[in-house]
Amino acid sequence: MKVFNDLADFSVDEIGELLRLANYLESHPQPTALSGKVLALLFLSPSLRTLASFQAAMTRLGGGSIVISPDMSIHGLETRPGIVMDGVAAEHIREAVPVIASYADAIGIRAFGLRKNLADDLADKDFHAMTALTDTPYINMESACNHPCQSLADWKTLDEVHEGVADKKFVLSWSYHPKSLPLAVPAATLHMAAMRGMKVTVLRPDGFALPAPLMEKAQAAAKLSGGSVTETNNREDALQDASILYVKSWAATDDYGNASEDMNLRRELHDWRIDEDWFSNARSDCRLMHCLPVRRDVEICENVLDGPRSIVIPQARNRMLAQMAVLHEMLGKR
Amino acid sequence: MKVFNDLADFSVDEIGELLRLANYLESHPQPTALSGKVLALLFLSPSLRTLASFQAAMTRLGGGSIVISPDMSIHGLETRPGIVMDGVAAEHIREAVPVIASYADAIGIRAFGLRKNLADDLADKDFHAMTALTDTPYINMESACNHPCQSLADWKTLDEVHEGVADKKFVLSWSYHPKSLPLAVPAATLHMAAMRGMKVTVLRPDGFALPAPLMEKAQAAAKLSGGSVTETNNREDALQDASILYVKSWAATDDYGNASEDMNLRRELHDWRIDEDWFSNARSDCRLMHCLPVRRDVEICENVLDGPRSIVIPQARNRMLAQMAVLHEMLGKR
Amino acid sequence: MKVFNDLADFSVDEIGELLRLANYLESHPQPTALSGKVLALLFLSPSLRTLASFQAAMTRLGGGSIVISPDMSIHGLETRPGIVMDGVAAEHIREAVPVIASYADAIGIRAFGLRKNLADDLADKDFHAMTALTDTPYINMESACNHPCQSLADWKTLDEVHEGVADKKFVLSWSYHPKSLPLAVPAATLHMAAMRGMKVTVLRPDGFALPAPLMEKAQAAAKLSGGSVTETNNREDALQDASILYVKSWAATDDYGNASEDMNLRRELHDWRIDEDWFSNARSDCRLMHCLPVRRDVEICENVLDGPRSIVIPQARNRMLAQMAVLHEMLGKR
Repeated sequence: MKVFNDLADFSVDEIGELLRLANYLESHPQPTALSGKVLALLFLSPSLRTLASFQAAMTRLGGGSIVISPDMSIHGLETRPGIVMDGVAAEHIREAVPVIASYADAIGIRAFGLRKNLADDLADKDFHAMTALTDTPYINMESACNHPCQSLADWKTLDEVHEGVADKKFVLSWSYHPKSLPLAVPAATLHMAAMRGMKVTVLRPDGFALPAPLMEKAQAAAKLSGGSVTETNNREDALQDASILYVKSWAATDDYGNASEDMNLRRELHDWRIDEDWFSNARSDCRLMHCLPVRRDVEICENVLDGPRSIVIPQARNRMLAQMAVLHEMLGKR
Repeated sequence: MKVFNDLADFSVDEIGELLRLANYLESHPQPTALSGKVLALLFLSPSLRTLASFQAAMTRLGGGSIVISPDMSIHGLETRPGIVMDGVAAEHIREAVPVIASYADAIGIRAFGLRKNLADDLADKDFHAMTALTDTPYINMESACNHPCQSLADWKTLDEVHEGVADKKFVLSWSYHPKSLPLAVPAATLHMAAMRGMKVTVLRPDGFALPAPLMEKAQAAAKLSGGSVTETNNREDALQDASILYVKSWAATDDYGNASEDMNLRRELHDWRIDEDWFSNARSDCRLMHCLPVRRDVEICENVLDGPRSIVIPQARNRMLAQMAVLHEMLGKR
Repeated sequence: MKVFNDLADFSVDEIGELLRLANYLESHPQPTALSGKVLALLFLSPSLRTLASFQAAMTRLGGGSIVISPDMSIHGLETRPGIVMDGVAAEHIREAVPVIASYADAIGIRAFGLRKNLADDLADKDFHAMTALTDTPYINMESACNHPCQSLADWKTLDEVHEGVADKKFVLSWSYHPKSLPLAVPAATLHMAAMRGMKVTVLRPDGFALPAPLMEKAQAAAKLSGGSVTETNNREDALQDASILYVKSWAATDDYGNASEDMNLRRELHDWRIDEDWFSNARSDCRLMHCLPVRRDVEICENVLDGPRSIVIPQARNRMLAQMAVLHEMLGKR
């Protein structure tokens, strides 16, 4: 494996293999599997789980990682192409990325989208401008429109809470958040659930429909897997018989990148805060997922987050285990 | 060992065992003892020695560590319970602690007290609110009222500079510092010296007496060990025949948490700066200890710090060795 | 090897040995060579390559590193000697350096010069005030006037691009930069090229001549090696038949430390930006080197940096390989 960029690049069988490896590595530690191997982690956007889980994963396999972010005492990182560098930043990613990658056996890059141009973000233009700078194997640690590590972990989490996932209803719901957040997790989550053959419903207020290309890609995956993908703004319809409520906020999409319009829409949507009432017509064993970080009592009520439906902590732990499998495939001896 | 929270939880014999292990690991490196093991280090308060010595300790034993602090490019960490998270911080410790801990075989947490409510700080309320969030073994890397890693290292340091420690006089002295500092080190140091059966004197200006529960806990330990615990504001009496002068500043305690009153008291106490005169009636081999960081020529005069009495550097080095023993006990194979 | 401070401390044969080891370690990984060994990395000045390459080097050899910089959540680091510490910084390097070093098997220190007093900077006074505080083996990760890790990597890079290096012309050229930069890289580079017996020309505007002691030290090295060292402000003369153009900006030296005078001089020198025209009378295989970070279209034009002459990425990668050899020599088993 040279690239781990999009779960959609892998077949259901290949994903199954990866997760079997993840489970095997959990029960059969291999603390020398990646001895002497180096993973570079470049964070152009903030992180907690990704930062911690990749470092932990490398240590568990006997390798090591190096972390670079512009917050560190480095020279400032310029990302804009073709700029005359007479400002604050003394280093350009055109050098930083290939240099860091040249020290490593693989590089993970996190760079959220700029949320200015939808086509650019859907194509992960900025992210791929960086990956094009190096031949080192790379891992997408969240780009404008993808987050395959999250989706692989979520796939594993679904296997752990529900048997016969393909028959279940999966609701991806927008929630209120004071900020306009990236499309990466909703895009990746939608496609993941569609690949699993689940009955997927995207629940979101008007103005926040996921862009058509994302819906169409997911619908194509659902067709292959025997699942379905629909969307609605009706909470009751969406939650009816749901087995999973996956909560995530994202930016307004009607006029993508228009921050003031987004804020105007969002201002009226404080009631998109998940409380126990949301689950009234869901299945009794319906579980709550969220990729974290979550704003307590803003996105989700505290009693739901701390209650028995929530599986957000084991979901986060699966990040490490899923990534161990990816790293083992990418860096392990053949 | 599942918890390393308070040296008082261990018997003198158990501490002796730990320090024999520390010495053994120093002379007999075991660079694969903790292969594949992960120590998470969560710093909600600043650190130098703790940060560096724990990472070094894990490397020496073949494992690795992950460091998380709110200064990093993470999402901001909210610590207040029950808050509606509509402010800057996007992540709550209620998720952050169990998630980070779930990646690790043990977690070390540093969180100084808020110094608002004495009873809360004496009970380490905030610290234990965090440790209650995870079943992962944990290490207290300094809470409101404890610092067992420092005390274990100090115990070792005492063994190295004085034979027959139990017969010696140990002076824990307040010193001037421009800021109001936590009670953790004085509390832990007092108890450690009492456990060793030393003649312990707490030397401090009026208004800075250590809280009664701390004195009583130490007196109980002294009773068991055959030592004694007294306090005074009289420098000459305190230092008479002293073998150890352990210097540490702390917050005013008469009206704990009243910052302006603390500053008023402190303003008059600039002469609580340790110089060579302090040692005039101490034993000639009296040594100077300090947990560091130390403000030169404010807490302690430069010539004393750089002179032959000072053992602050080997004392700091013992942090690593003591912690190696704790980590080996906590994470090593049985 | 106890000290790696100056490439001039080593003979050409010893450097050859180090680089043979570097090549050997690249083709024959030794992921347990430094098991359990700790490298401390103290950054008092910013870094990207040094930070990343040393960490990667230690991981590749099976050891680990600890990184400390004042930007981290530590207590603030005071560097001024003899100061009364009643300000912001709570910790002095007089404790920090020996403590950090005591946790490690070797310590790397980066501390740029203050650029106030030329004699102090030429003697690396501040840097050696720190190394004098510890007996731990140390590595100069860039001081006021030296950067031996860069020079060792550059030596290796020259071997890779040109056969018979000793016959070639090496031009070290000043370039425009909005800031007044340290002398470390030009000083170390000049001496390295002189040691190799190359025909070295320093090309710089008036007011930016390298200080006489640096030129004389390089001339002495050239005498030994059969090379030569000259300087000029004439671009065409300098580049005539050049095989290497090594670009680096540095501070004005006529009135060293006079920042406003430096800025006055510099303001007129925007045309010291390397473009393809500079190479018009160089050899067709003339290569561009730069230690990075580089300000695109300010120091060097984008098309040159991205063009076939540029070897800045492999040059940066050699940092890791060269340092692996140094670390193996310093910390490996005999």
